[in-house]
Order: sequence, then C-alpha cells, then structure tokens
Amino acid sequence: MNKEEDIGLLTSNSNASPFDLVIFGGLGDLSQRKLIPALYHLDHDGRLASGNLFLVGRRPLSDQDVHKKIKLLLQDNIPDQESSDSLIDFERFIARFRYVQLDLNEEKDFLRLSAAMDCQQAHRIFYFATGSSLYKAICIGLKRAKIITTESKVVLEKPIGHDYQSAASINQAVAEYFEEKQIYRIDHYLGKETVQNLLALRFANSIFESLWSHKYIDHIQISIAESLGVEKRAGFYDKVGAMRDMLQNHLLQLLCITAMEPPSQLTADAVRDEKVKVLRALKPISGDLINEHIVRGQYDAGLTDGIPVPRYLDEENVAKSSVTETFTAAKVEIENWRWAGVPFYLRTGKRLAQRSCEIIVQFKEVPHSIFPSQKKETLANQLVFRLQPDEGIRLYLNEKRLGPGMQIQSTNLSLNPDAQSSGRVPEAYERLLADVILGNATLFLRDDELLEAWRWLDPILQDSTTSKEAPENYVAGSWGPVSAILLLQKDGRHWYNS
Amino acid sequence: MNKEEDIGLLTSNSNASPFDLVIFGGLGDLSQRKLIPALYHLDHDGRLASGNLFLVGRRPLSDQDVHKKIKLLLQDNIPDQESSDSLIDFERFIARFRYVQLDLNEEKDFLRLSAAMDCQQAHRIFYFATGSSLYKAICIGLKRAKIITTESKVVLEKPIGHDYQSAASINQAVAEYFEEKQIYRIDHYLGKETVQNLLALRFANSIFESLWSHKYIDHIQISIAESLGVEKRAGFYDKVGAMRDMLQNHLLQLLCITAMEPPSQLTADAVRDEKVKVLRALKPISGDLINEHIVRGQYDAGLTDGIPVPRYLDEENVAKSSVTETFTAAKVEIENWRWAGVPFYLRTGKRLAQRSCEIIVQFKEVPHSIFPSQKKETLANQLVFRLQPDEGIRLYLNEKRLGPGMQIQSTNLSLNPDAQSSGRVPEAYERLLADVILGNATLFLRDDELLEAWRWLDPILQDSTTSKEAPENYVAGSWGPVSAILLLQKDGRHWYNS
Repeated sequence: MNKEEDIGLLTSNSNASPFDLVIFGGLGDLSQRKLIPALYHLDHDGRLASGNLFLVGRRPLSDQDVHKKIKLLLQDNIPDQESSDSLIDFERFIARFRYVQLDLNEEKDFLRLSAAMDCQQAHRIFYFATGSSLYKAICIGLKRAKIITTESKVVLEKPIGHDYQSAASINQAVAEYFEEKQIYRIDHYLGKETVQNLLALRFANSIFESLWSHKYIDHIQISIAESLGVEKRAGFYDKVGAMRDMLQNHLLQLLCITAMEPPSQLTADAVRDEKVKVLRALKPISGDLINEHIVRGQYDAGLTDGIPVPRYLDEENVAKSSVTETFTAAKVEIENWRWAGVPFYLRTGKRLAQRSCEIIVQFKEVPHSIFPSQKKETLANQLVFRLQPDEGIRLYLNEKRLGPGMQIQSTNLSLNPDAQSSGRVPEAYERLLADVILGNATLFLRDDELLEAWRWLDPILQDSTTSKEAPENYVAGSWGPVSAILLLQKDGRHWYNS
Repeated sequence: MNKEEDIGLLTSNSNASPFDLVIFGGLGDLSQRKLIPALYHLDHDGRLASGNLFLVGRRPLSDQDVHKKIKLLLQDNIPDQESSDSLIDFERFIARFRYVQLDLNEEKDFLRLSAAMDCQQAHRIFYFATGSSLYKAICIGLKRAKIITTESKVVLEKPIGHDYQSAASINQAVAEYFEEKQIYRIDHYLGKETVQNLLALRFANSIFESLWSHKYIDHIQISIAESLGVEKRAGFYDKVGAMRDMLQNHLLQLLCITAMEPPSQLTADAVRDEKVKVLRALKPISGDLINEHIVRGQYDAGLTDGIPVPRYLDEENVAKSSVTETFTAAKVEIENWRWAGVPFYLRTGKRLAQRSCEIIVQFKEVPHSIFPSQKKETLANQLVFRLQPDEGIRLYLNEKRLGPGMQIQSTNLSLNPDAQSSGRVPEAYERLLADVILGNATLFLRDDELLEAWRWLDPILQDSTTSKEAPENYVAGSWGPVSAILLLQKDGRHWYNS
C-alpha cells in the first residue's frame, strides 16, 4: 500500500471530496436503521460532501416512495418546524436520495444504475449491505457496466463468509475488481467512541500502557450481551449462530484493539499490522481443548424484562432441530510476551439478562493487604470500557472512607463522552462512513485480519458441525449456560455482570 | 516497643477509655484555633470519653472567664437554639473545661494542678502547645507534683528544637520523664484526610503502587504555599524561618509518606520504620551543593489579594536587618532503588500567590507519541494530592476529544472527600487528638525520625547562619524568588502552580 495514501486515524474531515454513494441492500434493515440516519447526521453536521446517494433494491419503487420512507424513518430527527432553514436542509438531504431497482442478474439494471450516476464523478463508494454471498455478483455487474473507477471504494459488511475457505473466496472474488486499498471491511464496534478512546487512553497516557501486560493485569473480559432474541433475523441467524455472527468479528476485533502492541503511528497499515499480529498469536483451540475453552448455548424459554419469551427452537423461521448456538463463551490466550498467562474471556449471546457491551480489564490484586478488614483479593483495580448502552470508561479504585480509622471503600472515576460539552455521542456508523469518504482505513479490517480470525475459529466451527451436539440450554433472561460460569470458576474467577 | 500495644492506624475509636487532658499553652493561638474546636467536634460526634479538660495558662482567669472565651470562639458551632438537646450538649461540653493558672517555675502551681485532677484517673494526656524550649520545665514540674502516671501520654508540638543538637537535648529531657511509647510528636499535616487517603491509594490499589518508582515517575513536587505574611507570629517566626518552621517537619513528613516503601502493616512502628528509612536515604546537601539545591527567599512589598502589603523587614517585631527566610525551595534526592533519579522538589513560603498545599506526582511522558498534534512532552500523567484549601485527589489523563478525527485533550478524574455523603471533612487535629486518646501513634513522629530530619537540615542551616547572606527577595503575591523557578528550569521542568 502506498504510504502517502495512508492518511490514518488523525485526519480531520474538512476537505472531503464530492462522491457518489451506492448502497446495495438500500432498503434493508441495516440501511434503514443505521446507514441512512448516519448519513443524515453527517449531512446535518456539514460533513457530507455533495453527490448523489443511491439506494439499490429489488422492489419496484419510485424516488418519491423512497423519499417518503426515509422521511418516516428519520421522523425523530426532523428539525423543529419553527426553524425553516433547518427544515429546508432536511428536505434537501432527503432529495439527494435516488432509488434504483436492480436485479443482480440483469446487466441492463446495472446499466441503468450507470446512467443515473454522474460520469464525471470518479469518487464512488459502493456499500454492500447484503449477504456476503452476493458480493461477487455485485462486483461482476458493476464491472460489466463499467461503473468501477480507480477512485472507487467498496464497503463490505460482516460476516464475510462462513468459514476460512468461503471468506478467502470472497476476498479473492472482490480482489478481482477492487484493489485491497479500495476495500473497507466494516466492523461497526470499531467505530464506537469508547473504542477510539481506548486507543487514546492506552497510547496517550504513560500510566496505562505501563500497566498493560501480564505483570499487572490478571485477566480481561469482553462481553457483548443482547437482551433481544433473534427477532426478524431468524432465517439468517439460524444458518450462522453466535460464533460467526459475533465472535469471529466483533469480539476478536475488540480483543485485538485491547491487546495489540503500540503501533508506530496511527495509520491504517501500522494499526492493522499490530492487530493481525495478535490474531496470529492466538493460541489455537482444537481437539480436546475445545471442550475446555469453548461454551455453546441456546436459549430456552424465560423472561425478558419480566415478559415471557419462547425458546429459540420455537422462534419463527428456526428449525425445530436446530443446533445453532445463540450464546458462546471462549477462553482465549495470546501467546506472546505481553500477554502470557493472561486469559481473555469472551462471551456473547442473545436473550441475556440485559443489553450491554463491556471490555473489563481486571488488574491483579495487591500482593499483600495492610488493611486487615480487606482481604487482598478485594483490593484489585478494574478499568471498564463500556460500549453500550451508555458509552463510557470507569476506573475502579479503593480509597479511604472519610472519617476515623482506616476503612477502605471502593469508588470509581468516570470518563463519559456524553458528559463532554459537545453533547451527542456520534454513532459508530457515522464515524466509519466519514472515514470511508475520507479514505481512512484504520478502523477497517484488512484481508489478512479477516482470514486470520477465520483460521482461528475454523477448528471450533468444524467441531460443532461434526459433533452435531446440541448447545447447552440457558434460561432466557439469564447470563447464559452454567458451563459459561464454570469456564471462569475453574480458574478461580467470575464474570462481572454489570 | 511492645507489639501488643501498637494498635495501629486501623483502630476504630469506639472503646476509648476516660482521660484527663491538660493543655499547656491552653489559651494560646493553637489551642484556640485548632485544639478546642477539634475537641468540640470529637465531643459532638460522641468520640470524646469523659474526663476533665484543663487549660493551663499564665494569666489570672476564672473558669467562668474561660468558658465565656470558649463559647465565643466556638460561636459558629453553637447548635441551633431551637434544638434544646444539642444546646444542652454544647453547654455540657464547655463546662468540662477547667482553667489552671500556672507559672512553670512555681511548684505550688503544679500542686494546684495536681489537686484539681482526679487522682483515680491514670489515663492522662499532656499537650505541650508551647515553645519546645519549655518542654523540659513542664516535665520537671509535672514530675515533682507526681502528676505523671505510667498511663500518661504527652503530645509535643513542632518545631522541636532549632537544630539537631537542641532537638536531641529536648528528646533526651522529655525521655527522662516519659517513655518513647508515651510520646506523641504531632505533625498536623499527617492528620489530613488526603494524606491518609494517599496511604490508601498507594497500598489498596495495585495500579498505583506498581507505578510508584523511578521507572514511571519523572519527579514529585510538594508545595505548601501561604498567602498570609508573618502576622502576629513575627516575634517567633523571625527566630525560626521557613526551613525550621515548615521544611524540617511538614515538607519532609509529606515526602516520607509519599516515598516510603510499603510497610508490612499499618502499625506505628512499621510505618515509622519505613519513614525513617527515607530520611536516612536523603542525599546529604552541604558545601557547594547547597547553592545548587536550596533556595532561600524573603518577601518584599507587594500585593495580597490586590491589597498592598509591606515587605517582611517592615513587619512589626521583625529586625530591620533580619536575614530570616520566609520562603525556601529544595531539590531533594532519595538515594535508594525506588527513587534513584527522581527529584523531589519541595517549597514553602509566606506571601505567595495563594494558599495551597499539594503533592504532585508527575509521571513520565509517553516514550513516543502517535498523535502528531501532541508532542510526547504533553502526554504525561499527573496525580495530585491536594491538602488545602479544599482536600482532594485528582488524576490527570489524556482522552480522545468527542467527535471526528483523533484529537487528544486533557481531562481529570477527582476523588473528593467532601463529595462523599458523610459531609464534613474532619480537621487534622480531630483525627490526631482522637489517635492520641486511643493510643495510636502511627501518624506521629518517633524520636529517630525527628533527629534524622534535623541531621539532614543541619548543614544547610549552618551554611546560612555562617554566610549571613540575605535571602533573595521576592514580590509578595508572587510564587517566590527567581532562583526557585531556575531550580527546576535547569532540570528542564517547572513548578505546577494551581
């Protein structure tokens, strides 16, 4: 990759050049829930350069239909009616969208897309908000209709492939049409403000990076808990499961950001070099180790927020005999000097007790307590990066209780982005779309990262496919199956459920 | 010292036995401003066991006169008139005081004191709130009148002596009448909540103690700044100066608490063993080193809070030719493994820009900045222990500024005792008086500590006595003489003036 083009994470976004954006799956769930609102906020903040916004879908709709749809979904963001200026801005934003009906097998549809686009506009962004099995077909269509320019970029949504081999094929297929530097593999967890603050905290504070190793850290927990079930995604989800949907990408990416060595600079390749080194240092889990290190669970009936919910097998579009896991926990080890002996416990699941995503850095206890009322086990610090629902960072300390004697009590110090003056915490997709527009690939996955993650997961996936064993049940609304608790208990530890 | 009697810092104060308290200098400034209010708060909180409170002074006054005086000085604390219960408590507290007129040379006066005391009450506390030159005479008088019991304690106020030899003599004189374990040498800075919290922070948090050495700390600053001039203490102060009044005791004590190795337990001797080790490891400053490491200043006319104030030499009771320093700064090094290469910069002075007392732990900068807008020099953490005016602890960090790009900004996290629910931060003297009553000597100086501090300071004092050089002038209301700034500047550092 050309160094000069590696603009890095530090870029300000004042000089974005105009571009055309084409979202495949433009009327899909992701587009409606995340992409269009993110574009709205970028536009509202004056950070969306001019150009057309194309939504591509299979249904026959007019631009007017789609504008109405967008207005409806942005309803909560519609500016105060009293301010006519901002209302005009809002209408102008919506008017930038154009709808293109397209069948991936129809060359003429691609030609229609081509005709709709401004041939003077070489800066083109193709967002593939579809299943990864369609990426190749989209590329072929774009190529044939001569829509791809050398300045084009393509954004790929996860999961890319369902194992190492399929991911490699997709990588290869896309690589026939786009150079690696044109490809932005998105993992929206990396767009979260707190993840970037984790980078700032590690590398702009000597005290934290000095503590960031097996010498001072006991273990690290990374949890992504959802309280929802599979909802409308059951058809998709039942083929995929928690490992492919969350562990292979989000959880491993958060692990990489937490564990990587300091990059020499905040450029895309410097950061991705460090992340891929972590993935390559993951201790392989195969054979007997799988039972020891990996937990698979599937939710049974239970309660979510006090309301009875059915078991996974009774969800619509789920096969009655499904052995798909809706929960997974893993004890992951990184075989390098920094992390030797420090387990990373990862877990994710649906229908858990609450929605939350946290990275918990558990420091070692004090070697000796001089406070008899406090066992040394109770004197350990914790640094918690909370990604959702409310973003923020908390440092747990022990302090003297005010007053006579010397009683120790726990306290915590908070760094909350919402507490900062500027107000709204930007959504991950806003950050990442802006980065794509600017050509900053630091927070996107490189091909080798994607493949290394699959390479590590493959034996675990194969084992569950081969064994066809049903995952362990857990009550909806709990914190997962008993084995997940035992996974830590046998190491003398426990999950911190916030 | 008997281990069983070393009850340590952790003692709760529920089971204090009754005692008689005798304050010599009972109508003096310290007694009125600090001791009596502290006793009031202890009584109010139910932490003052029964017994008589004797104020000893030279003036002929009746108990009634003294009760009126106390009432007046506690005016602000007088409970709401509506609550008759607390008013009764208040009156009862005042009635516990008895006044004894006493001339140190008159045996009959001591016999009158003896007669006034309850001969059944073996637990007796003698508080010497007088100049240390009087300690011997008081001891002799008490002894002759057979007032000293084996359960007696004596509290000695600083400064004890004016150099090593005189301090040793006083130590020796008092030791003829009291065993070392009966002697409580008070340094009220050690009674401050934040100093005890410093102990908690260091020894109840693995992360801080792990960072507490030359590996991670660049230097430490300890400042005690006063905005007032000599006020009514000029007669005393002009003979003493800032080094004896503040450097020898408060500043060195704060240095000891900050720098000491973790004690094996929080008992008096374990803590004092560690503190005295620090004093013994102080790099001696004599000969040419004095000019390099020590600054002496005297205030010139200037402004305090915008009001013109005279120079020190024009203060009442100050000799026109006085070469007494009202400011001192010192670069102190500790010659042991933990602190090699980490300077401790100490300073104290009168008529400085503001009243404040802080211990600032300056961590090293990051070895390499990956944030081009931030030089690595700007990326260093700081932990600030603020003892006055408002007590509290702040950790300075660098975080990502919310929003696009990767801008780093400084932020701080606070641990404020006043923010804790229980409200009022107890005064240092409350804490320390309670400790004397309970027999907890952890926060008091042992004889060897006192002498080691004088041993270190002696060559510096001798140098200024021999040279008779006038201290460097500084404008009242500034941060001290130019040399104090240069002291750090030549090391590439600067004072942090809060």
